[in-house]
Amino acid sequence: MNREERHRYGMKVLEQVDGEAGKRVVDSLADVSPELGHQIVAWAFGDMYARPELPARDRQLVTLGVLAALGGCEPELEVHINAALNVGLTATEVAEALLHTAVYAGIPRSVNATVVAKKVFGERGLLPISNLS
Amino acid sequence: MNREERHRYGMKVLEQVDGEAGKRVVDSLADVSPELGHQIVAWAFGDMYARPELPARDRQLVTLGVLAALGGCEPELEVHINAALNVGLTATEVAEALLHTAVYAGIPRSVNATVVAKKVFGERGLLPISNLS
Amino acid sequence: MNREERHRYGMKVLEQVDGEAGKRVVDSLADVSPELGHQIVAWAFGDMYARPELPARDRQLVTLGVLAALGGCEPELEVHINAALNVGLTATEVAEALLHTAVYAGIPRSVNATVVAKKVFGERGLLPISNLS
Amino acid sequence: MNREERHRYGMKVLEQVDGEAGKRVVDSLADVSPELGHQIVAWAFGDMYARPELPARDRQLVTLGVLAALGGCEPELEVHINAALNVGLTATEVAEALLHTAVYAGIPRSVNATVVAKKVFGERGLLPISNLS
Amino acid sequence: MNREERHRYGMKVLEQVDGEAGKRVVDSLADVSPELGHQIVAWAFGDMYARPELPARDRQLVTLGVLAALGGCEPELEVHINAALNVGLTATEVAEALLHTAVYAGIPRSVNATVVAKKVFGERGLLPISNLS
Amino acid sequence: MNREERHRYGMKVLEQVDGEAGKRVVDSLADVSPELGHQIVAWAFGDMYARPELPARDRQLVTLGVLAALGGCEPELEVHINAALNVGLTATEVAEALLHTAVYAGIPRSVNATVVAKKVFGERGLLPISNLS
Repeated sequence: MNREERHRYGMKVLEQVDGEAGKRVVDSLADVSPELGHQIVAWAFGDMYARPELPARDRQLVTLGVLAALGGCEPELEVHINAALNVGLTATEVAEALLHTAVYAGIPRSVNATVVAKKVFGERGLLPISNLS
Repeated sequence: MNREERHRYGMKVLEQVDGEAGKRVVDSLADVSPELGHQIVAWAFGDMYARPELPARDRQLVTLGVLAALGGCEPELEVHINAALNVGLTATEVAEALLHTAVYAGIPRSVNATVVAKKVFGERGLLPISNLS
Repeated sequence: MNREERHRYGMKVLEQVDGEAGKRVVDSLADVSPELGHQIVAWAFGDMYARPELPARDRQLVTLGVLAALGGCEPELEVHINAALNVGLTATEVAEALLHTAVYAGIPRSVNATVVAKKVFGERGLLPISNLS
Repeated sequence: MNREERHRYGMKVLEQVDGEAGKRVVDSLADVSPELGHQIVAWAFGDMYARPELPARDRQLVTLGVLAALGGCEPELEVHINAALNVGLTATEVAEALLHTAVYAGIPRSVNATVVAKKVFGERGLLPISNLS
Repeated sequence: MNREERHRYGMKVLEQVDGEAGKRVVDSLADVSPELGHQIVAWAFGDMYARPELPARDRQLVTLGVLAALGGCEPELEVHINAALNVGLTATEVAEALLHTAVYAGIPRSVNATVVAKKVFGERGLLPISNLS
Repeated sequence: MNREERHRYGMKVLEQVDGEAGKRVVDSLADVSPELGHQIVAWAFGDMYARPELPARDRQLVTLGVLAALGGCEPELEVHINAALNVGLTATEVAEALLHTAVYAGIPRSVNATVVAKKVFGERGLLPISNLS
């Protein structure tokens, strides 16, 4: 695949995972760092997300763990909490995954990520979440 | 103590340390992650803050150090700068503790935390702070 | 449940997930911070891991994401890469999860975690891993 | 040099690098942590920036790398992306430096820093940036 | 004070706080970055630690919080856990401060710092620590 | 370019920048995560380092800033301090860049990176470094 084909292929994967939100990030980079936008599409999605070794749902669990732990990634968490719901995780599972991060990254990181989840869940009519226990 | 008693006990400790601000955080989690709210109350405050091995004032010094160093914890810093004043630290001591973090976490983390302190001090009529030196 | 019962219950969960490695961490804390050991058992495993909202396999995916992103958690990664294999993730899936962290946490965090995985996989006779693609 | 002379000297260096934006940060600290303001001027600029071992342009490349990697330093990045342009880096070079951080600190840190660059470039009429490749 | 006097003054403060361990760090930098060694002495200790706004004991509580939260600072933690004991914190208080960081920075950061404390306490004959609760 | 050609091209860039040390990292990943090794070569070096918008010397200044700030990247710093010297930075400039990180990332990150520089400089017979000031 040449550069353009890699981009086209990555864009298909990105649309399946992130939907419109991911494309908006890439578009917003067009005048300041078009290469960064290209690498998100062609590399992150075309090369990495597309690999069959881990299904999309599992990738979002890892992604939520990384983004919550890093801190300061609220915009990215918003995209990827939506993505998590897009690829089959329930709101309850997303909230639980973010709760779980408190053990390893501490309460503030877990709370900050959960505040983003609350916003996303609210927009998608998923509040209040239901718990098994 | 059962789960409810642990919650009630933790809530008493939380109210002494964080006042209303802490309860607002817990309340805001009720529809998205009630368990995270419960763990803040029952575990963080009921189990950890309540221990006599370190007085409340000392715990806030450690907490300010951790939150300043982590970065991206401005909402938590606002709660805990208020808490620090609630449990006996002066505004001068809080500002000095945040200044001290510059040595180990760098100037930006120290400035970002100090900007939060300025907001809290302003709301409590404590500006300008007085310095000994 | 009282404190002792919470500990006993948590220890059962810890043994299922972490096996001997988790107990060694707790034992090593006995003379310096027995309460930290207790909280790992009673809180992290008894309260958090035990919740049915997310299966053990999914929790390890989140945990791997958090630990890789934090950096400086090589000893914890060793315990949890073993745990991941204990609860049903394959070596290929673990390696892929750590590869995936490169997108969000950068190449060095991904490489450092993968070096730990190589050690664990080697000890368990799982090298070389097999890839689908 | 005494304390006042160190301050005066540092302020000259700060003005050359950061311009008005740096002075605004120092002024905003006057009533909450005047010593932090003083240390930014006298230590960071007077002692560190003033050293001839590395030219101002190179210092900004290092600074952009550190600030992007730390995360949560958007206000500081705004000051230092302006500083980078002040001391001779082009908008293309700044955007490329921030793109480069994606390799080591991951895509989100790189995107967040690039969003700040877009704001600064826009204010200075430098959009769209031009690329060689 | 001129540069040399600032260094001499800072060295006195450093010796009171860190003892021999701090001097060893500075000495080890002599051939690779003498200015970094100088800044640790003249700035960190002469300018910052020497300020009367916060006593030495309180500064170590903040420092332990920052170093535990940052991660990857085991050598610095070793110096500053010794320093904490030098300026009047008990082993029980140090262990408790590090336990407290688990709430905000997560279990792994707290465990890693506590492992360093165990080493320092062992060298100073302070194991096992005694707890009030 | 197809996958193999992208790899070959990236390997040429990697050899120019990192020399043997970079190849050793890639080789060590062959049995545990060959794709991570491939992405370091094909993406990080073939796609990113190869871009003409920033010369190799400038990229290493950014890289040193990021790696020092992240912490826990001592193995990567060793590779990239060697790389920095390979592409034209002097030992004095490298030490100064790492000193500069103290302003933004704090003293411990700066010291830890400088300790790695001391090892690399020693192996290349560059100690003691010479300073202009």
